[in-house]
Amino acid sequence: MRPQLTEPEQLDEWRPDVAVIGAPWDDSTTNRPGARFGPRALRASAYDPGTYHLDLGIEIFDHLEVVDYGDAITSHGMWELSRAAIHQRVAEVASRGIIPFVIGGDHSITWPAATAVAEHHGFGNVTMIHFDAHADTANIIEGNLASHGTPMRRLIESGAIPGDRFIQVGLRGYWPGEEDQQWMRDNGLRHFMMQEFWERGTKAVLEDLVAAAKQRGDKTYISIDIDVLDPGFAPATGTPEPGGFAPIDLLRIIRRLVLETDVVAFDVMEVAPAYDHADLTVNVAHRLIWEAFAGLAAKKRDLARE
Amino acid sequence: MRPQLTEPEQLDEWRPDVAVIGAPWDDSTTNRPGARFGPRALRASAYDPGTYHLDLGIEIFDHLEVVDYGDAITSHGMWELSRAAIHQRVAEVASRGIIPFVIGGDHSITWPAATAVAEHHGFGNVTMIHFDAHADTANIIEGNLASHGTPMRRLIESGAIPGDRFIQVGLRGYWPGEEDQQWMRDNGLRHFMMQEFWERGTKAVLEDLVAAAKQRGDKTYISIDIDVLDPGFAPATGTPEPGGFAPIDLLRIIRRLVLETDVVAFDVMEVAPAYDHADLTVNVAHRLIWEAFAGLAAKKRDLARE
Amino acid sequence: MRPQLTEPEQLDEWRPDVAVIGAPWDDSTTNRPGARFGPRALRASAYDPGTYHLDLGIEIFDHLEVVDYGDAITSHGMWELSRAAIHQRVAEVASRGIIPFVIGGDHSITWPAATAVAEHHGFGNVTMIHFDAHADTANIIEGNLASHGTPMRRLIESGAIPGDRFIQVGLRGYWPGEEDQQWMRDNGLRHFMMQEFWERGTKAVLEDLVAAAKQRGDKTYISIDIDVLDPGFAPATGTPEPGGFAPIDLLRIIRRLVLETDVVAFDVMEVAPAYDHADLTVNVAHRLIWEAFAGLAAKKRDLARE
Amino acid sequence: MRPQLTEPEQLDEWRPDVAVIGAPWDDSTTNRPGARFGPRALRASAYDPGTYHLDLGIEIFDHLEVVDYGDAITSHGMWELSRAAIHQRVAEVASRGIIPFVIGGDHSITWPAATAVAEHHGFGNVTMIHFDAHADTANIIEGNLASHGTPMRRLIESGAIPGDRFIQVGLRGYWPGEEDQQWMRDNGLRHFMMQEFWERGTKAVLEDLVAAAKQRGDKTYISIDIDVLDPGFAPATGTPEPGGFAPIDLLRIIRRLVLETDVVAFDVMEVAPAYDHADLTVNVAHRLIWEAFAGLAAKKRDLARE
Amino acid sequence: MRPQLTEPEQLDEWRPDVAVIGAPWDDSTTNRPGARFGPRALRASAYDPGTYHLDLGIEIFDHLEVVDYGDAITSHGMWELSRAAIHQRVAEVASRGIIPFVIGGDHSITWPAATAVAEHHGFGNVTMIHFDAHADTANIIEGNLASHGTPMRRLIESGAIPGDRFIQVGLRGYWPGEEDQQWMRDNGLRHFMMQEFWERGTKAVLEDLVAAAKQRGDKTYISIDIDVLDPGFAPATGTPEPGGFAPIDLLRIIRRLVLETDVVAFDVMEVAPAYDHADLTVNVAHRLIWEAFAGLAAKKRDLARE
Amino acid sequence: MRPQLTEPEQLDEWRPDVAVIGAPWDDSTTNRPGARFGPRALRASAYDPGTYHLDLGIEIFDHLEVVDYGDAITSHGMWELSRAAIHQRVAEVASRGIIPFVIGGDHSITWPAATAVAEHHGFGNVTMIHFDAHADTANIIEGNLASHGTPMRRLIESGAIPGDRFIQVGLRGYWPGEEDQQWMRDNGLRHFMMQEFWERGTKAVLEDLVAAAKQRGDKTYISIDIDVLDPGFAPATGTPEPGGFAPIDLLRIIRRLVLETDVVAFDVMEVAPAYDHADLTVNVAHRLIWEAFAGLAAKKRDLARE
Repeated sequence: MRPQLTEPEQLDEWRPDVAVIGAPWDDSTTNRPGARFGPRALRASAYDPGTYHLDLGIEIFDHLEVVDYGDAITSHGMWELSRAAIHQRVAEVASRGIIPFVIGGDHSITWPAATAVAEHHGFGNVTMIHFDAHADTANIIEGNLASHGTPMRRLIESGAIPGDRFIQVGLRGYWPGEEDQQWMRDNGLRHFMMQEFWERGTKAVLEDLVAAAKQRGDKTYISIDIDVLDPGFAPATGTPEPGGFAPIDLLRIIRRLVLETDVVAFDVMEVAPAYDHADLTVNVAHRLIWEAFAGLAAKKRDLARE
Repeated sequence: MRPQLTEPEQLDEWRPDVAVIGAPWDDSTTNRPGARFGPRALRASAYDPGTYHLDLGIEIFDHLEVVDYGDAITSHGMWELSRAAIHQRVAEVASRGIIPFVIGGDHSITWPAATAVAEHHGFGNVTMIHFDAHADTANIIEGNLASHGTPMRRLIESGAIPGDRFIQVGLRGYWPGEEDQQWMRDNGLRHFMMQEFWERGTKAVLEDLVAAAKQRGDKTYISIDIDVLDPGFAPATGTPEPGGFAPIDLLRIIRRLVLETDVVAFDVMEVAPAYDHADLTVNVAHRLIWEAFAGLAAKKRDLARE
Repeated sequence: MRPQLTEPEQLDEWRPDVAVIGAPWDDSTTNRPGARFGPRALRASAYDPGTYHLDLGIEIFDHLEVVDYGDAITSHGMWELSRAAIHQRVAEVASRGIIPFVIGGDHSITWPAATAVAEHHGFGNVTMIHFDAHADTANIIEGNLASHGTPMRRLIESGAIPGDRFIQVGLRGYWPGEEDQQWMRDNGLRHFMMQEFWERGTKAVLEDLVAAAKQRGDKTYISIDIDVLDPGFAPATGTPEPGGFAPIDLLRIIRRLVLETDVVAFDVMEVAPAYDHADLTVNVAHRLIWEAFAGLAAKKRDLARE
Repeated sequence: MRPQLTEPEQLDEWRPDVAVIGAPWDDSTTNRPGARFGPRALRASAYDPGTYHLDLGIEIFDHLEVVDYGDAITSHGMWELSRAAIHQRVAEVASRGIIPFVIGGDHSITWPAATAVAEHHGFGNVTMIHFDAHADTANIIEGNLASHGTPMRRLIESGAIPGDRFIQVGLRGYWPGEEDQQWMRDNGLRHFMMQEFWERGTKAVLEDLVAAAKQRGDKTYISIDIDVLDPGFAPATGTPEPGGFAPIDLLRIIRRLVLETDVVAFDVMEVAPAYDHADLTVNVAHRLIWEAFAGLAAKKRDLARE
Repeated sequence: MRPQLTEPEQLDEWRPDVAVIGAPWDDSTTNRPGARFGPRALRASAYDPGTYHLDLGIEIFDHLEVVDYGDAITSHGMWELSRAAIHQRVAEVASRGIIPFVIGGDHSITWPAATAVAEHHGFGNVTMIHFDAHADTANIIEGNLASHGTPMRRLIESGAIPGDRFIQVGLRGYWPGEEDQQWMRDNGLRHFMMQEFWERGTKAVLEDLVAAAKQRGDKTYISIDIDVLDPGFAPATGTPEPGGFAPIDLLRIIRRLVLETDVVAFDVMEVAPAYDHADLTVNVAHRLIWEAFAGLAAKKRDLARE
Repeated sequence: MRPQLTEPEQLDEWRPDVAVIGAPWDDSTTNRPGARFGPRALRASAYDPGTYHLDLGIEIFDHLEVVDYGDAITSHGMWELSRAAIHQRVAEVASRGIIPFVIGGDHSITWPAATAVAEHHGFGNVTMIHFDAHADTANIIEGNLASHGTPMRRLIESGAIPGDRFIQVGLRGYWPGEEDQQWMRDNGLRHFMMQEFWERGTKAVLEDLVAAAKQRGDKTYISIDIDVLDPGFAPATGTPEPGGFAPIDLLRIIRRLVLETDVVAFDVMEVAPAYDHADLTVNVAHRLIWEAFAGLAAKKRDLARE
């Protein structure tokens, strides 16, 4: 992630596979704020784990070119400005066929980010695989249409990513209520609840998840709310919900999805470092990104070998 | 949990299904104290997860009336006063056929609380399903008969809940010693150790646990020492023992037991917030209660439908 | 662990089965230091869990004599002095046929410690069962041949413990790179990666692990880098890697290995208390040692019964 | 603070001297957010210090009627809604001649709060005594006119509280720049910098501060950004600046100002509990409020005696 | 503090000047418990600062013999047992003319400890210099006559230390109320409030404090509730009150009192390590003890020189 | 501090006034390690306070050119390599007449850093103003001549900075002992102990300190061990000693010294972020550097005006 680019022209010059973008925005948070420091913590504090993926047997950056494209310049308290900045920065990357990896910030960011990605690939052409304890499909919360509990509703409504291109993984707990559940059913969202993982086991459900992703079409946007993990492994988030994934499982789920679908965008949201301990959450968020890098690298290597 | 009642007469007027009682007592703690702040933390700091239980598909409080009946007025350093206050406050609830949900406080509280419950339902008529890393069946510790390591002994001795009505779940570690083990065998306590969960898997043991509970008779008192969870998920407790449950399992065990037995009382003990991080323990304790609420609500709904 | 001995002569007098040695050294740490306080924390802060092992049904110290043989006198910034002190202190124990239990300190300590053990039992006669997220087989790191990332290389090179007597358990993540991987293959190290545990399940792999240990010969040195656990359970370590073991599994793996092989030395390394929370890591490190004590005690008891 | 009122009519019925209002808003924060939890922490977690003020020799609530008038209903991410709600709630109190005590939340709240107070007492008739490390007189920050760095500019511009009715106490550090400094000089703000306290001593400057307050007219709005304290005493705030007051001094400064001016409103802002330790900041914020209560009570007692 | 003695006979043999006693009791705490771990933390975790007192120019332990006489064996929840144990252990020391240094534990401990000291020196012959934010002179709290808010009442009532032999230093805040204030006036307690230190300056009040101590007679028992320090310097305590001493002042106040009066007993109470950060409180408590050691050593040295 | 340079040639091109160098080394620490993360924390986590110094009325970076010259490439466990790297990097800066600002790391770093500075200005021509709780003048500790307790001895012995060019400020506590005290007296070191600040007041001693610095000759190296501050304000350090400076005083002492002497080098050492809370220590360390920047800028501005 070493080369740090700031201008779109540098992207043309450098032609990376992946560009990392920070989106330090958290004013759409309903409970504990602080995800604005997610990008800073992932860049500055994550423990650098090496670059050779043991399970895939690959020196990642021999095969994958990754740049850091800095932060979208968000403004505290100013959603429209910030949304436009996030949209533009992701569009600058996605429009060049580079895969944006967005580090949040709260989940409202996925609205402009995924819109920019869908604009490049065509509305309706991208499948969203959304890892989260919460569906984030409310219409409005406390009068706010751009809450971090609503981005998926906005994406579906606008047609950027239709409901039947949504796969939501890891839902659990107590939200949203029946009206929104019905709306989700009406719009054809596919769910792999934590309950199903508990009942059938991770490996069995993962097969169905991969199949569902492939069936919806190959281009995928993987969006991870870090609260999909159990709070014991990822305490640093705003709306924790006990009963989530362990990292050992989630890392392998991401690996499979990256290896078997055509990932066109990736984000990791809702890391709020003020609530972290010993960088637990920062490190596991970092590894989820690293795992995706490794998968992309392995695919490029294998393609080159063919 | 909004309506806050203080007087027994209000219970008569309101006629709730459940009354929550705080018991801020921790002077019977052998190691790290601080559970006196458990009730405050659960009321003030737990992240409100919504009220629609995703797996059961139920808007909980459409079907279940819950009130907050405040705290038993305990006095620091004064066990007899505090014990009487806890007994009385639980009795005021249980005697009206309302289910008391007691938030501790240390586990010594279960002695007066379960005694009050047994007085209403008849000594010997209630099955105790006790989740804990520790059996809490010592006779005396450091000269203290009312230690948080002894309440189950007291309940068995008094006949409130006989030994053969005890099911203990999640025991592990290094305590108590052979003499107490023999006493437990002599008194017919049934154990589902963590070892068995590890060997046979959660789902298999859960079936046996449900069967054992039903066999002992339908009325159950569910008492959870939060240390039954692994300390990684519930650090804020006084006597942590590595190797416990993950929340994803315990939540479903509680759900099944609430759905399949007649829960007449419920408590969650030993949450000591000074040792918490990012409200990990407070939130999971809260969800265990919420899970029980959801199960009770579902049963009422289904009964109403019949 | 009560008797505290300081002089070799006291070992002769006391003739314990096990002698615990602290090795407060952490200057060989690549990332977060602080493991120098591991011995102090394990002695002073671990919650004393009792002494009766529930699953083995044994009062440990009725059957096993354990002494605390104090710390090797290490000197900050002075590796050669410290290495010699660790070597000597372990040799004083091992040469008397007493099992050294070394508490680190960073993993570089295992170089002198295991050398001293191998000197007593004969170079090539001891099997190293090494639990770690990292192989620690680099040749040199930042110019340092004695880094905590190199001790296993040193032991293999010197012949103290040849490569084909190495079993490494729990490796994962991104290090070391291809060159070192090849070196490990060339030297015949056996690996049980986390990936295999995830794919096949703990119990199945544990059978193979026990078989592999027995096949290599009975005398075993068990060396645990606490980072083999997932950071959610053991945050207090220098180089955390998400995706590790849960305590419930690791405790039973250690139990089986102690019961089924001839453990001649044991160490627990890389506990850095400054990064701990509520003594999570200190307590689980303590229980790994307690588990080994229990296994040794059970074997002695059973031998005595025969 | 026990009586909890929710409706304006209750204020008429109860006729308290003081009404406490929470304002859980922090989306205008430039650095660390989290002050939205300030009201909750002050109500739930502050250590209750007793009610007899030792230095003034007064049982506070024998002389002063205080009610809790709940929170202004703010909406995450929705400034205009939230601003209106804060304005209205403070106006409901101030318009009845009751003294509002507002607990933030970030300092942007003082804009609507002080506007509502000035509307009751007349624009230009209230003196603002503003304790803060920062002047909060910027025109716009990151495009945001309602940033927590701009409320004093807004109040001066609107005429609610003219510049020459501003006394700012405790300024230090590195912000704002020359342009804003010139604007402040042009608008006649009076400053008592930390530098002056250091040079001349607290007691000497306090005399001048009291004189300056009295000279500007008797009605005062005391607004405290908790970051006016040194971060060693009040770590839990968003924009800490080393070199501030110790509590022992600030408590007495507040006491004198309350005793010697006609306080018509009071607020304590920028307590962000996620960054607190052992409730340091929560407790000192609580005592600043308690100190003001004590001063008001003493004045009422002395008036009654006359 | 190295020699660790357990039996009274060893005291006779060793004849130290000072014997340190731990009193791990905190069940008399009204707010945050945890002081039971004060003795453990001071022994295990305090940073060892060296042994040469720079300001007094003395190698402390060349002149002063100090032993660690272990803990009074307290029992959780059992006040009478614990009180007797504390009384006995202190009596074993004091009766031999050795100065007991008691590490708490909560302040209720000073009741038995000072009683034992007064029994040796004669009821009425010892002056108590009591550093605390709170007077601890209540008669009864929540029905508890042995609360940590009542020990000074008990000592005065019994005549062990009459009211006119009490000097209380550092009182502030909001407790106790008028009735207890009157009782204190009636009993002739002398107070040096924080208010006076703020008004007149530390050095001026210290002169009066020393004079007052000397006037009351030379034998002094110095009892320090760590909450006499401002919580910014000593967060780890149960009932913090902002506005206290800085360590730089308190250390010198203790030094003067030790040098100029005949200290016959010393205690440091209410260190509750669960609320500490980076050992702030543990270290400053340790230095208060070290300061007293240094003063005692200097007096012995100077006496020997005469 | 924005421009980030890596090569000496860039220094020639850029010709800054100041170059900041990180020195991430902490293997010479006697107690709590972790200062290796000081440079990272100061760069990544300090709260950016603005750039206009209120008391000096100056926009700092309009007058002072500051670059970040990256880190000296230290190697864990390898003192000679690391020392050479630090020496070289500082020499690259100092030899060009640029003022090095070194961020530690532990205090052993000042040995090579000040040697490099003295080599440029001439051995004996630089006055060291050393802020610290500890004299750091031991000859050897645990066999280590390069301990963080010995760098000042090394500098004096080598003649780089003779003893009579040493001014030590803030010493207190219990170390070192008489032998080293005598050595310091023999070598003419000048001391301003915390005791003197307490007795005479900060402002009076500051005058003498400035006079002493000027008398020794104008070129000064200011070296700050962050533990010169009281641990309440700067907990994140390895060897804390209660009773130190408050930031409000130390900031002004640094300001005066920078304004009145010719500062040729500056370092801030011993910030160990693992022990920090809410960035207390990181922020105050940052402000000490900022204060020096402001003073240098003011001198340049005033010189330009002449």
